[in-house]
Amino acid sequence: MSKTSIGKRRWAIAEGYLPGWSHGEGPQLTSHETVCLLNAGEADAQVTITLYFTDREPAGPYRVTVPARRTRHVRFNNLKDPEPVPKETDFASVIESNQPVVAQHTRLDSRQAELALLSTIAYGE
Amino acid sequence: MSKTSIGKRRWAIAEGYLPGWSHGEGPQLTSHETVCLLNAGEADAQVTITLYFTDREPAGPYRVTVPARRTRHVRFNNLKDPEPVPKETDFASVIESNQPVVAQHTRLDSRQAELALLSTIAYGE
Amino acid sequence: MSKTSIGKRRWAIAEGYLPGWSHGEGPQLTSHETVCLLNAGEADAQVTITLYFTDREPAGPYRVTVPARRTRHVRFNNLKDPEPVPKETDFASVIESNQPVVAQHTRLDSRQAELALLSTIAYGE
Amino acid sequence: MSKTSIGKRRWAIAEGYLPGWSHGEGPQLTSHETVCLLNAGEADAQVTITLYFTDREPAGPYRVTVPARRTRHVRFNNLKDPEPVPKETDFASVIESNQPVVAQHTRLDSRQAELALLSTIAYGE
Repeated sequence: MSKTSIGKRRWAIAEGYLPGWSHGEGPQLTSHETVCLLNAGEADAQVTITLYFTDREPAGPYRVTVPARRTRHVRFNNLKDPEPVPKETDFASVIESNQPVVAQHTRLDSRQAELALLSTIAYGE
Repeated sequence: MSKTSIGKRRWAIAEGYLPGWSHGEGPQLTSHETVCLLNAGEADAQVTITLYFTDREPAGPYRVTVPARRTRHVRFNNLKDPEPVPKETDFASVIESNQPVVAQHTRLDSRQAELALLSTIAYGE
Repeated sequence: MSKTSIGKRRWAIAEGYLPGWSHGEGPQLTSHETVCLLNAGEADAQVTITLYFTDREPAGPYRVTVPARRTRHVRFNNLKDPEPVPKETDFASVIESNQPVVAQHTRLDSRQAELALLSTIAYGE
Repeated sequence: MSKTSIGKRRWAIAEGYLPGWSHGEGPQLTSHETVCLLNAGEADAQVTITLYFTDREPAGPYRVTVPARRTRHVRFNNLKDPEPVPKETDFASVIESNQPVVAQHTRLDSRQAELALLSTIAYGE
């Protein structure tokens, strides 16, 4: 267990979308765009997320700390500073960390006990 | 932030399919085969997409520009030049760019607020 | 276009499963476990697929040719020689090719115009 | 077939979640969080799984053997020693093996003949 960190310091997710409305069935049909971050190492990871769009300049950086030996599942809906993530808008994201982390992109559909509709490893380098 | 580009110049998606019909419920049940491209760098990316089939020669190249610091979600349904993408036909795609980009394959199901049914990072090299 | 091939010669898919029954709604509810292979190069690819199980020796090799500049979407249901793929049985697969190819694992749900439920790039090396 | 092993010795899955309740429709609606492991080599693989959480120290290691030339689809629900996996709790996992293996993350939805809702290759290094 001498080496516990795993991952990379730069990740990208080319696909993102927050729906702008729900469908009359309440929060169960809200989809949650999430980046799951794992920091298996012994030092806290200072992470920045930058969002890219189709027709405007990037937003961010949004700042997230992933403590040592912890995971954080970050919902894009909850990113508020420096600005909320626009809805009904295609976006992509770049995640940069000062420690190795692992990033996975997941969209949750909570209609059935937090089943997810999609998940894919991000692109790391 | 001195280095902002991320990704690779050649990507492949081995799976593609455009359904040939809808199911009486209108555009909500249309599936959208998409390649999401992120260009986080400082130079516009000139991208070509070549499509491969089971029993005919490849189609393309289709040309797409992804401006610097932008993302483009390209729907295969919308590729028209040099020829439309045939429906009800298995295909695969190779994406080549003159700048590093990140490619992700997503199939959208718009029945519920643009939920996606699948997404996977493309194969990059 | 001097270099057209892309991919690797060895791939693995750790997850596979063929359901053993359908649900009274006919072929629309049959799930199709598929490996999508792309050979973007100029030489035909001779591919072998070996299947691994939980409690018996591996099956195969199954032999598939992917012609130059073609894609083949191989359904595990259709592999018959040297033996059919057992149903209701967890399996994994290793794909070996004499040319670079790209492998993607997709499970199709044909209830809605060939929508897929999952897809992921295989592990290549 | 002189070289049969494929894969890496360290893998990470940044996303995991076990629902804490079902929805009145019995086991068909239970989702199964699974890591599929393939050991295509000639030596048994001794695998440890460590789980990471948001607000407590990691759990494990959980110990799993994947025999030579076998696959094992490990359900997180079934990991009991040293402690059960908590429900309704985000987690991430690191898989370490003394032999090369391939790891794939799959969430099964058994409503329709073991269809899966998501699957993605783990991050390997």
